[in-house]
Amino acid sequence: MGRIVCTGLGPGDPDLISLRADRLIRAARHVAYFRKAGRTGQARRIVEGMLRPDCAEYPMEYPVTTELAFDSAEYNTCLADFYDGWANRLAGLAQTEEVLVLCEGDPFFYGSFMHLQIRLAGRAEVEVVPGITGMSGCWTATGRPITWGDDVMTVLAGTLPEADLVRHMRAADALVVMKTGRNLPKIRRALAAAGRLEAAWLVERGTMPQERILRLAEMPEGDCPYFALVLVHGSGRRPMAAATPAEAAAQ
Amino acid sequence: MGRIVCTGLGPGDPDLISLRADRLIRAARHVAYFRKAGRTGQARRIVEGMLRPDCAEYPMEYPVTTELAFDSAEYNTCLADFYDGWANRLAGLAQTEEVLVLCEGDPFFYGSFMHLQIRLAGRAEVEVVPGITGMSGCWTATGRPITWGDDVMTVLAGTLPEADLVRHMRAADALVVMKTGRNLPKIRRALAAAGRLEAAWLVERGTMPQERILRLAEMPEGDCPYFALVLVHGSGRRPMAAATPAEAAAQ
Ligand SMILES: C[S@@+](CC[C@H](N)C(=O)[O-])C[C@H]1O[C@@H](n2cnc3c(N)ncnc32)[C@H](O)[C@@H]1O
Ligand SMILES: C[S@@+](CC[C@H](N)C(=O)[O-])C[C@H]1O[C@@H](n2cnc3c(N)ncnc32)[C@H](O)[C@@H]1O
Repeated sequence: MGRIVCTGLGPGDPDLISLRADRLIRAARHVAYFRKAGRTGQARRIVEGMLRPDCAEYPMEYPVTTELAFDSAEYNTCLADFYDGWANRLAGLAQTEEVLVLCEGDPFFYGSFMHLQIRLAGRAEVEVVPGITGMSGCWTATGRPITWGDDVMTVLAGTLPEADLVRHMRAADALVVMKTGRNLPKIRRALAAAGRLEAAWLVERGTMPQERILRLAEMPEGDCPYFALVLVHGSGRRPMAAATPAEAAAQ
Repeated sequence: MGRIVCTGLGPGDPDLISLRADRLIRAARHVAYFRKAGRTGQARRIVEGMLRPDCAEYPMEYPVTTELAFDSAEYNTCLADFYDGWANRLAGLAQTEEVLVLCEGDPFFYGSFMHLQIRLAGRAEVEVVPGITGMSGCWTATGRPITWGDDVMTVLAGTLPEADLVRHMRAADALVVMKTGRNLPKIRRALAAAGRLEAAWLVERGTMPQERILRLAEMPEGDCPYFALVLVHGSGRRPMAAATPAEAAAQ
């Protein structure tokens, strides 16, 4: 039985790759990664300049599905076929070679690798290396902690129905909304309904060269890039007798 | 104005430190870290063997507060004095030297450094380097993704009142409960009340040499170590026509 290793790459800055991932990437002979058809792909971009010259690359291009509804049976079948096909191909390759799969952020946190992993069970040994999540890169970029004391933090996908977003946004202290893009107008309405819009930040391409950090309320209406997320910082319990003026200003 | 850099160290395995953190640690002349009085401290343990021989160490030992109630004014004052004192000391040192502060996991995710950061505003330039969170290390150790599709994930502190825990445990798909330790019996009761106990895992010292992964329901009642957390995996939407028997078994 061959071996497939999936490694997280962190939020985007190659300097935030782990030591273990760095060694795996530089040694790999077979590297696979997901991407949209016709794009370089974020995972591939992060490792630019790190791969061996004789490394074989396997870009796993998502089937174009814009004409199919997300909740249709056709969409489901189309994606399932795509994952089946790549699981077969990687399982075959892994019989004689070690295969490295690259994943942005942390693979087990809303990653696509899991769809291969369930299909590889019993057919290849699979190891996963965690990475710094996109959200950690983004809240660090804002210069402020996301959670203090016993703050409750909830992570939401912007693909959720608006009413669900509102309910969860009301219940938590700190918020992260992933998968923004075309869902941004809906996310903005939900934040406003939950009374959280004034405190919300949008971080585009956190830790990448084109990083942009904005207060969501000050942004013009509209979409944002795929690599963007919305944050609301918690402000939990904290010991603070003897606050200095500088401290008070920083809060 | 001097410079203070706080770097995340990841969940425990030194191989999961980022490339940037590794360079900072190996070059540092002044290194500070929090620990309980009389202990080595988890942050210090992770960097064992990595510090320069001429590196000056500043263990910031939490004041012993077992006799004070968590919500008392005395506790608050005692901790505030502790953070004030260290902020002053590091700000002084940073006038001539660069100081590195070590932090387990990711500093801005329930870390203690934030209490220094607000006190250092305007007195030293502060930079924070994100790290792999303890929870990423733990869910990777279970071998299963924590979130799929549009799963809602909520992170809770075991220090919360039981009724709050129950309410949030009912509302989310995936759960992470941090700060377990002596709160474990309360967390277990809350999970049972929310109907989530059968699906809960306890991960002790994730990615560290004494890592232990157990189904919470199969564990004897009682406490657990400080470096432990409870996980309930989400099971979101996933494309899965044509499931093979091996896949079905893995789900
Ligand atoms: C399919 S999820 C994958 C998450 C990834 N596995 C992780 O651990 O961050 C993709 C979403 O992650 C978020 N994301 C990941 N990295 C990001 C970054 N560097 N800046 C902003 N958003 C990011 C965006 O919301 C994007 O839509
Ligand atoms: C004060 S919080 C600090 C969290 C840290 N900044 C992070 O990003 O993971 C401490 C709690 O984190 C959790 N934790 C951190 N690392 C862990 C690990 N390797 N294994 C299990 N739990 C861990 C435990 O629940 C512990 O009580």
